[in-house]
Amino acid sequence: MKPLFNIKILDLTRVLAGPFCTMILSDLGAEIIKVEMPGIGDDARHFGPFKNGQSLYFVSVNREKKSISLNLKNKRGKEIFLQLVEKIDVIIENYRPGTMEKLGLGYETLKNINPGLIYAASSGFGHSGPDSTKAAYDILGQAMGGIMSITGWPQTPPTRVGVSLGDITASLYTAIGILAALNQRSATGIGQKVDVAMLDCQVSILENAIARYQVDHKSPEPIGNRHPTIAPFQAYKAKDGYFVIGVGNDALWLKLCEAIGRIDLANNEKFKTNQLRTQYLEELNVELGKTIADKTAAEWLEIIDRAGVPCGPINTIDKVMENRQIKARNMIVEVTDRKAGVIKIAGNPIKMDCIEEKPDRIHAPEIGEHNLEIYSGMLGLSTDEINKLKDEGVI
Amino acid sequence: MKPLFNIKILDLTRVLAGPFCTMILSDLGAEIIKVEMPGIGDDARHFGPFKNGQSLYFVSVNREKKSISLNLKNKRGKEIFLQLVEKIDVIIENYRPGTMEKLGLGYETLKNINPGLIYAASSGFGHSGPDSTKAAYDILGQAMGGIMSITGWPQTPPTRVGVSLGDITASLYTAIGILAALNQRSATGIGQKVDVAMLDCQVSILENAIARYQVDHKSPEPIGNRHPTIAPFQAYKAKDGYFVIGVGNDALWLKLCEAIGRIDLANNEKFKTNQLRTQYLEELNVELGKTIADKTAAEWLEIIDRAGVPCGPINTIDKVMENRQIKARNMIVEVTDRKAGVIKIAGNPIKMDCIEEKPDRIHAPEIGEHNLEIYSGMLGLSTDEINKLKDEGVI
Repeated sequence: MKPLFNIKILDLTRVLAGPFCTMILSDLGAEIIKVEMPGIGDDARHFGPFKNGQSLYFVSVNREKKSISLNLKNKRGKEIFLQLVEKIDVIIENYRPGTMEKLGLGYETLKNINPGLIYAASSGFGHSGPDSTKAAYDILGQAMGGIMSITGWPQTPPTRVGVSLGDITASLYTAIGILAALNQRSATGIGQKVDVAMLDCQVSILENAIARYQVDHKSPEPIGNRHPTIAPFQAYKAKDGYFVIGVGNDALWLKLCEAIGRIDLANNEKFKTNQLRTQYLEELNVELGKTIADKTAAEWLEIIDRAGVPCGPINTIDKVMENRQIKARNMIVEVTDRKAGVIKIAGNPIKMDCIEEKPDRIHAPEIGEHNLEIYSGMLGLSTDEINKLKDEGVI
Repeated sequence: MKPLFNIKILDLTRVLAGPFCTMILSDLGAEIIKVEMPGIGDDARHFGPFKNGQSLYFVSVNREKKSISLNLKNKRGKEIFLQLVEKIDVIIENYRPGTMEKLGLGYETLKNINPGLIYAASSGFGHSGPDSTKAAYDILGQAMGGIMSITGWPQTPPTRVGVSLGDITASLYTAIGILAALNQRSATGIGQKVDVAMLDCQVSILENAIARYQVDHKSPEPIGNRHPTIAPFQAYKAKDGYFVIGVGNDALWLKLCEAIGRIDLANNEKFKTNQLRTQYLEELNVELGKTIADKTAAEWLEIIDRAGVPCGPINTIDKVMENRQIKARNMIVEVTDRKAGVIKIAGNPIKMDCIEEKPDRIHAPEIGEHNLEIYSGMLGLSTDEINKLKDEGVI
């Protein structure tokens, strides 16, 4: 029995921030019922990359979910929606703030029908504040939230993190908010609204950048691949390419110097402490760089790893997918999609004994694939009634 | 009453991945009891940046927590620890796998004392697999998990995301795992172990990179600040610097062309669809670049925003801290630290009506600051007994 075995979620979300959140909750055992506009569906169905006409983008975050079609602008569609709301635990939407209210389906309405309901809203700027209703995409979150100003290199234009970190971070915080509200509901029986903004989430992960700004009184700048306050803690160039070393304390520094045959560096007063190594990093890196250029990355990784100093390769995606630890942890799993065939996707990183680590997952749904199951099973509608709703464009 | 009002957490974690997780749970109302080695404490107390000798790094992720000192290597210390375990809901540790077992305090031991206990382990590589016990730091997670290979620019060395994303992502997933286990415990009364690896979490956020690899059969590479499959969706250089535009669909594309006076681009067959715009992006960017260079970023943001096209400034940290929406959402709050004075830190991005959005937070604790409260209040020890434990170096 998975940890969210008793949780049913009505999922109105599209594209990434919402669907990534419900994917996590699905992996933990919640039943996800995706609500899609008849004939149109989630926008991400039309986002590349494609294989045999199927969006792998869509499949990778919607595997194992159920889908019902439902037109929320239609009067009968709204009635059906409200009947569903009575029977579920959580609703999640990532519309622009105000959209659900315009449909007559805002939280204030829904909580009267189901006082235990947890209503999660994931938006760009949040459900309060002067810029609440502005449209947002991931690139705006990364830009306005500050992470683009501290990622990359001094000489390059501002750099986006190579994944949609704005969306993904918002997904993770939304999942946390929903689960915290479920804890409170277990104690009180009462649900609540959870309001998560992509921009807020980007601020929350700025980590020590906000602290550094208050000490230096200047905004931190992009610094490539090194850590701002720990050294040596970055990528180094071996004979055939880069790898990383992480020296988190002085004991590791001594071990590193011994391992690479540069005990002179350990004895150099300028490099005795982490603070000094950070201060004289340029000089230190000239010395380390000379030595590291002598062997290949694989040779150095063997030597430095044997000395017990944290180090690792910079894996490209192909290497990630064949890494023995990542494979052993079931972090690459398969979905057999009806159109695209077998495709590999990322697995669930939350490991619990009650979650069987299956190497394969159920495919992502077609729009309305589970209409019969949900409308008949949950609402007791007959096949005739369901067919009629379909003919009328309600579902 | 905050959503985790009834949850007590014994927090053995150090540095970032663990403390960031318990900070989130603290903001949601859980009582966090930090367990620190007498006289030494959390390593992060010694990490910069410093202000008046106080680590702002430490303060920013440990505000509002309680701290007790306890030597887990000491026999009496272990006894006290086991007594505490009986009285709490969650324990979280980020030691190298096997460390708690060596102390005689592994999950198998603890669950016999408290069957409802949720035991969360946050590690670099996880509690299973061939590389389980290797040491890890954030830079290894970012390197081995693949994100460094797709962040940055084609002509630069591999680029680290400008925050400790390996640690932070692991924190968020660990919080999700703990809360999911609490849901199960509400239904069954039984706790469980939650095992989260930084490396696994990095794989889980690779998003469409894994999908793209399976279509192209080559590993995705760093592409600067653009989106791999949506265009135009990136930073552009105005007369005085960069800003971002996010055109997520064809309707927005038309609006953008109108707003910037380049309806010729909307009429160009080469740029009609998102797929075509991605294909001919270089050509498109030459045209957009010419026009955008004519005005300042502020001028363009006003024009493009008025047209309803998502766009925004690339905020440096100073601008983030004075952004009106971020301020209105209470995302910058204050801690009055006894040594460092008033410092600003990031707030809680999970907004719920039951969480009062205070503009100020309680300071981070000294090592053992709450010894009397916890050892007397939770375990019923007398002041004399507590003083004796202190003299003996147990606490």
